Amino acid sequence: MIFTEEMFARHMRPINGSAIREIFKLLAKPGMISFAGGNPSNTALEPQVIAGLAGEVLEQYGTALLQYGATDGFNPFRESAAEFLGTCGVNCTAEDILPTQGGTQAFDVLLKALVDPGDAMLCESPTFLGAIQAMREYNAKLISMPTDENGVIVEAAEELIKQYHPKLMYVIPTFQNPTGITLSLERRKALAALASKYGVVIAEDDPYRDLRYSGEELPSIQSFDEEGWVVYMSSFSKYVAPGLRVGAAAIKNPLLRRKMVIGKQSADTHSPLLNQAIVDAYLRKGMMPGHLARICGDYREQLNAMLDGFKFFPEGTVHTVPQGGLFVWAALPEGMDAMKVFERAVENNVAFVPGTHFYPDGGHLNTLRLNFSMSDIPTINRGMERLGEVIRAEG
Amino acid sequence: MIFTEEMFARHMRPINGSAIREIFKLLAKPGMISFAGGNPSNTALEPQVIAGLAGEVLEQYGTALLQYGATDGFNPFRESAAEFLGTCGVNCTAEDILPTQGGTQAFDVLLKALVDPGDAMLCESPTFLGAIQAMREYNAKLISMPTDENGVIVEAAEELIKQYHPKLMYVIPTFQNPTGITLSLERRKALAALASKYGVVIAEDDPYRDLRYSGEELPSIQSFDEEGWVVYMSSFSKYVAPGLRVGAAAIKNPLLRRKMVIGKQSADTHSPLLNQAIVDAYLRKGMMPGHLARICGDYREQLNAMLDGFKFFPEGTVHTVPQGGLFVWAALPEGMDAMKVFERAVENNVAFVPGTHFYPDGGHLNTLRLNFSMSDIPTINRGMERLGEVIRAEG
Repeated sequence: MIFTEEMFARHMRPINGSAIREIFKLLAKPGMISFAGGNPSNTALEPQVIAGLAGEVLEQYGTALLQYGATDGFNPFRESAAEFLGTCGVNCTAEDILPTQGGTQAFDVLLKALVDPGDAMLCESPTFLGAIQAMREYNAKLISMPTDENGVIVEAAEELIKQYHPKLMYVIPTFQNPTGITLSLERRKALAALASKYGVVIAEDDPYRDLRYSGEELPSIQSFDEEGWVVYMSSFSKYVAPGLRVGAAAIKNPLLRRKMVIGKQSADTHSPLLNQAIVDAYLRKGMMPGHLARICGDYREQLNAMLDGFKFFPEGTVHTVPQGGLFVWAALPEGMDAMKVFERAVENNVAFVPGTHFYPDGGHLNTLRLNFSMSDIPTINRGMERLGEVIRAEG
Repeated sequence: MIFTEEMFARHMRPINGSAIREIFKLLAKPGMISFAGGNPSNTALEPQVIAGLAGEVLEQYGTALLQYGATDGFNPFRESAAEFLGTCGVNCTAEDILPTQGGTQAFDVLLKALVDPGDAMLCESPTFLGAIQAMREYNAKLISMPTDENGVIVEAAEELIKQYHPKLMYVIPTFQNPTGITLSLERRKALAALASKYGVVIAEDDPYRDLRYSGEELPSIQSFDEEGWVVYMSSFSKYVAPGLRVGAAAIKNPLLRRKMVIGKQSADTHSPLLNQAIVDAYLRKGMMPGHLARICGDYREQLNAMLDGFKFFPEGTVHTVPQGGLFVWAALPEGMDAMKVFERAVENNVAFVPGTHFYPDGGHLNTLRLNFSMSDIPTINRGMERLGEVIRAEG
């Protein structure tokens, strides 16, 4: 017999991997200026610090760190993660914390716990590509919520809830990927109220929260939820190191937490203890505030350089002015095609991600996402000027 | 609204976690002799070695080890894993290797890639509890294959394939969990031929292969497969350290490997680079052969002590005599109930896992699984004597 595409599970057949990954292959070209990724800056990563902590925790815990661990997580890390999340508007104790493989896995096991094929799910549009792929793999029916400069429009979301009876709503409230937009305080309260009123689980994906360069910290949607409808998903990828794959979800509903733990049992038995212990030590030693202050100082200047670089773009371009995170979102003058611009830009050694990929229903061909965290200021200046030239040549 | 069990995905509702996990909670009692687990011995774990390697690889690779990595895996580890698996009858190159979170995740992403709700799957009976749970979470219809002292009975498996047209067959060929039985060479060839004849993907779960204490090494089922129907799943949990969560699957079919990579993208983006690099360094430095020789020497004596301990069991008890692995399987005289024995045994500070849990269809109440890797020889002697007394008192 010959193995054919028909052997795959029906919902997996049309999924052929993220468009972004194809883009990333182009970035290996020497001299390429890339605004395409979503990585932290290499200068934000501390291999010597991590090596020191690895040695310390292996000395402290010995074989316990190398044995099988609990799916529920490594308890010292659950404690320090709960304290870290609690410092800024997440209502949780160590008991509520499920350590995960980055934020990605929290969403995966939440989908596994809740979604039957065909179930409706609400999400922002545009939204995180990885989340779109994950929802499709569980065969969810994606419903796009309208958004504006303050995030999800609550009244529109309520109408969609009444119409589609979704089980789940996926939201990135702070410095959203891809737009950089932050959901306002009032809307955070209102979404928590909707969740409770209609019985919708909110997946609050908040990995950029502590990369704030201006404006005031906001409490999470989860902090306004008194009934356990909001699953708060955080990650240490953007704060400490993505390569360690350490995330933490806060799940106040014990029924739901238990079912997610069961899903994680079958997914990977448990998260690696060494990685949880390294991030735990990082937090307990009080290294996070100083580290965040340093990297936010750098990212703030990089963001400002990028915003300044829009002077090279054609008139009629609009863009967001994020208060934090890793991305700026732009719309070129109506009628322009960012996919075509992308091809020309790559020929000219500058890259970004065309915005259409972030829309569950496609379209919006004039939009694009720009990352500033991975380039230093001279590179951002050069890259924005070059990109501006390419766009104007296409316009 | 109130969150109720009805909110869960239909297939997840009846799954309430492994019975073994409840058993493990009883083991914290002081003085308990546990033959219940499946962990490596603490004396097999090397925290100082791992700490040294962590420091070295972080020095060698620097920030590259802390950035996002490829879902396909860390290439140096893919190379060394391919070489390690190839030394004993697995046909693979680095390209075929997908690093995973232990062997668990390889099976999870394989199920995600292939299984539509209701699809039939063949498995041994008894089989690994975690695999039963995983298959149920994907709503597969489990079909038990008859086995004997040489593993799966091929003719019976063929009849079941004709009857149920399964997409997938799950087999643990070497020192099976829970029985310790090894699939014979002829049957390995025959299963590979069945896979190809009928178009059935075989998930060959082989995490104990290198824990051999007697007998001859056997080539994998995968090595007899020329068309890419067999996915070979290995893990470094039993050889280096389960807490690191490093596994490696060899997948020769590029279509299937690609779809598993896509499933893994949404599951956890990628496996942590530090952990892959540690195991890579362990392999490249040639530490594995000496380490395996040392731990196999210890485990061999522990196994022999356990086999000797059956002299304390009532007449009519039968048990396997494994050539490796971590488990011995026993059947008490017909009519005895290992669940009842278990309760009395725990009162007397000795524990095991009742065998019924390993059968997809339950039953077989007189069977039990005993682990010898986690107890030293005096403890095994004491524990088997005590367990023998409890059983005879119940008999």
